[in-house]
Amino acid sequence: MAQMRAFQSAREKGAEIPEVVCFEKQSDWGGLWNYSWRTGLDEYGDPVHGSMYRYLWSNGPKECLEFADYTFEQHFGRPIASYPPRAVLFDYIKGRVEKAGVKDWVRFGTAVRMVRYQKDRKMFEVTVHDRPNDRMYTEEFDHVVVATGHFSTPNVPEFKGFATFNGRILHAHDFRDAREFTNKDVLIIGRSYSAEDIGSQCWKYGAKSITSSYRSKPMGFHFPDNWEEKPLLTEVDGNTAKFKDGTTKHIDAIILCTGYLHHYPFLEDDLRLRSENRLWPLNLWKGVVWETNPQLFYIGAQDQFYTFNMFDAQAWFARDVMMGRVSLPSADAMREDSLSWRKREESLETDEDMIVFQGENVKELINTTDYPPFDVDGVNRTFLEWEHHKHENIMGYRNLGFKSLMTGTLAPAHHTPWAEALDDSLESYLQTVREAAE
Amino acid sequence: MAQMRAFQSAREKGAEIPEVVCFEKQSDWGGLWNYSWRTGLDEYGDPVHGSMYRYLWSNGPKECLEFADYTFEQHFGRPIASYPPRAVLFDYIKGRVEKAGVKDWVRFGTAVRMVRYQKDRKMFEVTVHDRPNDRMYTEEFDHVVVATGHFSTPNVPEFKGFATFNGRILHAHDFRDAREFTNKDVLIIGRSYSAEDIGSQCWKYGAKSITSSYRSKPMGFHFPDNWEEKPLLTEVDGNTAKFKDGTTKHIDAIILCTGYLHHYPFLEDDLRLRSENRLWPLNLWKGVVWETNPQLFYIGAQDQFYTFNMFDAQAWFARDVMMGRVSLPSADAMREDSLSWRKREESLETDEDMIVFQGENVKELINTTDYPPFDVDGVNRTFLEWEHHKHENIMGYRNLGFKSLMTGTLAPAHHTPWAEALDDSLESYLQTVREAAE
Ligand SMILES: Cc1cc2nc3c(=O)[nH]c(=O)nc-3n(C[C@H](O)[C@H](O)[C@H](O)COP(=O)(O)OP(=O)(O)OC[C@H]3O[C@@H](n4cnc5c(N)ncnc54)[C@H](O)[C@@H]3O)c2cc1C
Ligand SMILES: Cc1cc2nc3c(=O)[nH]c(=O)nc-3n(C[C@H](O)[C@H](O)[C@H](O)COP(=O)(O)OP(=O)(O)OC[C@H]3O[C@@H](n4cnc5c(N)ncnc54)[C@H](O)[C@@H]3O)c2cc1C
Ligand SMILES: NC(=O)c1ccc[n+]([C@@H]2O[C@H](COP(=O)([O-])OP(=O)(O)OC[C@H]3O[C@@H](n4cnc5c(N)ncnc54)[C@H](OP(=O)(O)O)[C@@H]3O)[C@@H](O)[C@H]2O)c1
Ligand SMILES: NC(=O)c1ccc[n+]([C@@H]2O[C@H](COP(=O)([O-])OP(=O)(O)OC[C@H]3O[C@@H](n4cnc5c(N)ncnc54)[C@H](OP(=O)(O)O)[C@@H]3O)[C@@H](O)[C@H]2O)c1
Repeated sequence: MAQMRAFQSAREKGAEIPEVVCFEKQSDWGGLWNYSWRTGLDEYGDPVHGSMYRYLWSNGPKECLEFADYTFEQHFGRPIASYPPRAVLFDYIKGRVEKAGVKDWVRFGTAVRMVRYQKDRKMFEVTVHDRPNDRMYTEEFDHVVVATGHFSTPNVPEFKGFATFNGRILHAHDFRDAREFTNKDVLIIGRSYSAEDIGSQCWKYGAKSITSSYRSKPMGFHFPDNWEEKPLLTEVDGNTAKFKDGTTKHIDAIILCTGYLHHYPFLEDDLRLRSENRLWPLNLWKGVVWETNPQLFYIGAQDQFYTFNMFDAQAWFARDVMMGRVSLPSADAMREDSLSWRKREESLETDEDMIVFQGENVKELINTTDYPPFDVDGVNRTFLEWEHHKHENIMGYRNLGFKSLMTGTLAPAHHTPWAEALDDSLESYLQTVREAAE
Repeated sequence: MAQMRAFQSAREKGAEIPEVVCFEKQSDWGGLWNYSWRTGLDEYGDPVHGSMYRYLWSNGPKECLEFADYTFEQHFGRPIASYPPRAVLFDYIKGRVEKAGVKDWVRFGTAVRMVRYQKDRKMFEVTVHDRPNDRMYTEEFDHVVVATGHFSTPNVPEFKGFATFNGRILHAHDFRDAREFTNKDVLIIGRSYSAEDIGSQCWKYGAKSITSSYRSKPMGFHFPDNWEEKPLLTEVDGNTAKFKDGTTKHIDAIILCTGYLHHYPFLEDDLRLRSENRLWPLNLWKGVVWETNPQLFYIGAQDQFYTFNMFDAQAWFARDVMMGRVSLPSADAMREDSLSWRKREESLETDEDMIVFQGENVKELINTTDYPPFDVDGVNRTFLEWEHHKHENIMGYRNLGFKSLMTGTLAPAHHTPWAEALDDSLESYLQTVREAAE
């Protein structure tokens, strides 16, 4: 969507833009934000893209992801609280692309099956599957932008005893309704955002106990009494989980919050990004341009503190490369530049370091393009305060609010504290605002 | 596997056979019988093929599926009971292909991504993905046999209220351990084999109640008291299910036993079978040869009473077409022949009709090839007795036994009645045989 908006913005300003086609396998836009109760395979037999769950609220403040050219206040007509539920954020991103009027560029229900580069013609041959009509066809393009996300294909490790565990084992990707786990002893594997948030969901909706099991180090938040952190699971035996420290615990269900795979089964070898989830994957100049074939671009391929406005910055940059406004250095120079970012990435230690690092990349992209400049350092500071709030009160941080870096307005507090707000609908959220946050 | 065995059999008899390559996306053979606890997507991000569940036992008598060239008695060294659990049947089919020594023909861990026919060269270009090495490559073949099964891609209808149901919704494809549903009120949608067997599993492992909801007509078995048949679900509201007859019921979980899709995302339009699950899909001469391009074959694409020995008969037939032993009639003649089978298929009313119909096709295939002839009419009779047993006692039919049509031996009864046999392991099953069945 960011890519389409980037072209539309150039057209608005009078530029002649190339023909843009967006193939989207779902029947509507919104990507991960287009929620579905489905898990596993969808109505056409393809993997369900959605990893979101029913009661998901933003885990970062909306002030950090706000679009510079379309603010929350502009969309909702008034200030709203800082941690909107899924449906509210969906509404926001939808509002922006609707306004841009780019829906005609999208072929919905169309899955990309194979992309091959034709060296002789310097074109990509893209084979897609129109799913409602069950028709496959191939078209050619000068440029391909891969914006398929990388939080939809679960990384699912196996532990001893899984084949004979007497309960449900699922990955975060398939988690939907926390009420399924009410009164259950839930085991969570992982220590990152999904582990923290899905554990919190289960707690909020009445799980009997949460046990989260980490590989590298504990999350270290002040969790409620019925939430315990344990070193890594070694095996399950019936309904007993055993951990590295020799302790055991009764569990009813296991939720693998073990992250996601970069998965591009539709890209031939030379075009396929291979990376774990990290801040600086290699072979992407400025994080965007495929160095070994700069007719190819990736948007959002990094691990993310920055999201929506970073995707924008990337899309504006990719557009300008395609339109010849940004000129490409030699392959060697691109590689060298990337390696220096990678080197820096490898030296990062704290979350603060990482946020500033990603902010630097965003700044560089914005400065190269006509994306409306915004206060990146201010966003960095907001992220740091957010981290601080979480460490003070992991079940309460969402009750606080921040100042918009785009409009300067301070977000009001939500009318109900997060831990008591069981209804996550747009209607409920947009009800009268309680009072200004402090 | 049947196809490899067909070629190996020809080679044994002195024929010169073509080079055979089998691409198998799983890391071991056995197809659906290669059980996995995984659901959704597998360790490489591709759809999990397995639809089998932990405590599955054959739902038809093993005497109906026995290979004519490799009997159960030969494999296990003694007679065994008629309804083996999954692990026992897996052992049997594995034993046969191991004996055939065809493992070297298989490239495991390799998913087929795209098959295109090259009209000029009259060859298929097959693009595959070696998943452990994350390497895609393309090879050319004169013939392609599609034997990917059609009970792995779930057909998942949506009902009103699913997006806000407070519990788990899953398709039979993702059902694994019945103990997850102990003490639960389980709603099953569908009226065919999965509905019957997954409902029975849940009953056996202590579900509080089973409600099965049909679209066309009830199953009509004498179910236990806590199992009720209802017309189709109209909606769910919270944890309340509403049915077409206006009744309602409290439910904790919904299992969609709504069948599977033919799904071949790796085949271009002209090669792709499009069909619901039925006894005579069109465009397949004799149920095997792709009429509009007879270099392509499908094995096991039909709805199935007959299974293993029918796949054999089909594979022997496909082999003989490829080796020029069976000559192809004109496209029109093939089509006409198929249409006459389809016409007959459409007139079938009872299960008996359908069994005899599929038996006729099997007979024809066997008679055209050198597959060891066996008593197809005897198999038909066994199927009919089996149907009769089920209507007498749906939770007890698996305690009875049949005579092998290959060896004449009567199967002994299993040492424990099915409803009390909670351990489905090979070891447990092969323990001392109780006494001969009657
Ligand atoms: C559980 C979860 C919660 C999150 N919460 C937040 C949050 O609160 N705040 C935040 O800022 N970020 C959050 N994120 C981060 C998230 O990555 C971004 O917000 C955003 O959705 C990423 O956008 P994207 O366009 O890169 O990818 P996606 O949103 O994943 O969109 C990719 C699109 O590509 C389509 N697609 C995929 N494969 C194909 C194909 N072969 N052919 C055609 N179309 C295809 C998909 O259908 C989808 O529409 C969350 C992520 C997860 C997993
Ligand atoms: C739940 C269930 C229970 C059943 N129980 C019985 C029973 O008791 N008795 C009976 O006779 N029949 C039973 N069946 C019927 C079943 O169809 C057959 O027994 C048999 O497994 C079908 O064999 P197949 O080789 O056609 O397909 P499968 O067993 O499905 O094998 C297909 C193979 O193709 C591979 N594959 C798929 N896509 C690709 C790709 N793109 N690239 C590479 N490889 C790929 C898969 O990994 C798999 O190994 C059952 C079916 C189901 C769903
Ligand atoms: N409410 C929300 O907004 C919300 C909720 C959930 C997720 N998200 C977003 O979703 C994205 C993905 O987050 P994520 O947490 O799913 O993935 P992630 O950040 O990539 O973290 C993966 C986790 O899995 C662990 N792990 C991987 N393999 C493992 C193994 N074999 N054994 C044990 N642990 C293993 C890692 O452990 P180590 O760290 O120890 O190596 C890490 O904790 C993020 O962008 C996040 O912001 C947002
Ligand atoms: N133990 C075992 O060996 C075992 C266990 C399970 C399955 N299997 C095998 O697995 C294969 C598949 O069986 P299956 O039962 O999964 O599939 P199936 O035989 O194709 O039956 C599909 C069922 O789904 C119903 N259905 C489809 N769409 C529906 C909708 N929108 N609403 C309501 N109902 C809908 C159909 O209803 P109508 O009939 O009313 O149209 C039918 O009852 C068979 O070969 C079977 O033998 C074996």
